[in-house]
Amino acid sequence: MAYNIAPLNELIAQFERLPGIGKKTAQRLALNIIEQPAERAKKFAEALINAKEKIHFCKCCQALTDDELCSICASTERDRSVICVVSEPKDVMAFERTREFSGTYHVLHGVISPLDGIGPDQLRIKELMARLSDENIKEIIMATNPTVEGEATASYLSRMIKPLGIKVTRLAYGIPVGADLEYADDFTLARALEGRNEI
Amino acid sequence: MAYNIAPLNELIAQFERLPGIGKKTAQRLALNIIEQPAERAKKFAEALINAKEKIHFCKCCQALTDDELCSICASTERDRSVICVVSEPKDVMAFERTREFSGTYHVLHGVISPLDGIGPDQLRIKELMARLSDENIKEIIMATNPTVEGEATASYLSRMIKPLGIKVTRLAYGIPVGADLEYADDFTLARALEGRNEI
Repeated sequence: MAYNIAPLNELIAQFERLPGIGKKTAQRLALNIIEQPAERAKKFAEALINAKEKIHFCKCCQALTDDELCSICASTERDRSVICVVSEPKDVMAFERTREFSGTYHVLHGVISPLDGIGPDQLRIKELMARLSDENIKEIIMATNPTVEGEATASYLSRMIKPLGIKVTRLAYGIPVGADLEYADDFTLARALEGRNEI
Repeated sequence: MAYNIAPLNELIAQFERLPGIGKKTAQRLALNIIEQPAERAKKFAEALINAKEKIHFCKCCQALTDDELCSICASTERDRSVICVVSEPKDVMAFERTREFSGTYHVLHGVISPLDGIGPDQLRIKELMARLSDENIKEIIMATNPTVEGEATASYLSRMIKPLGIKVTRLAYGIPVGADLEYADDFTLARALEGRNEI
């Protein structure tokens, strides 16, 4: 008879469904939960339920929040005339970590990808266009990923927004800070050359 | 005002407390939970609570089980005269994966480690000795890790068990299957030479 513990197998399976977690790691994590006091498993379970129940999309920018408006949209210190358009909620966190941006965001929740059956209607573009007509917007920064789909989405949106007389910009391409030129790919290097700045 | 979502931060913190999970991975896992249907978070939470509530140590071998006896101790097909002594529950799983062992196990739940304040009394040695007097045991296989503490524990136990007239064996040392001799350390190579077998 095989050595089988149903509740442990179920916990391992749950860990294994997380992205980037393989069978061995899932087993290690599940055993760690078993080894710790029951209080730990309880808190973890509560955090899971709580996060899923309380977090939804900001009414304005579609970023994650546990309130009606996210703390950025609700803040009086942010510049509402600049909107940085990103594809995923985690991109908002990435920009916020830089502490360099004082405008607001708009999260599309995806990019246009015909191969995956994702067209403009599946993205939060309606909500963005509504903001453009309501608020006094000066600049839209396209901050989708530098992939084929990200580019297509950025150019689709810019074609919609430019006729409204709003400035549309795109993140700069170039060599990553701290990288070695030798390992930069040809396209990146060509773009870095093209976008060179006077020093 | 910083971008802060308390329930998300709490979930990230819970993931971050798992072994080998850093800040970025924890964030990725937490966001994955947020993106999935609520049913997923609920099942995960239930699995955590369930595993912690139902799993305890086998009355006989101290391995993990959700029953009074683990499926190995409860099985009528296992050879009860051979006990493989391991330090952690996960070691039982490792041996079971090989499908090469038909005896039973005993989990010590640690190794003797004076530096960490762990002496023989903190391990499940009492329970092992009780089994030796009750059952008709022919061989004890010491399968603690090949570390200083694992060796010390194995030799401590063998000094206790040998006087009872029971054969005590230790896992073979040698080169791992598929490894390159060039990268084997000196001690391992010396032990592999010492333990050579006729072919």
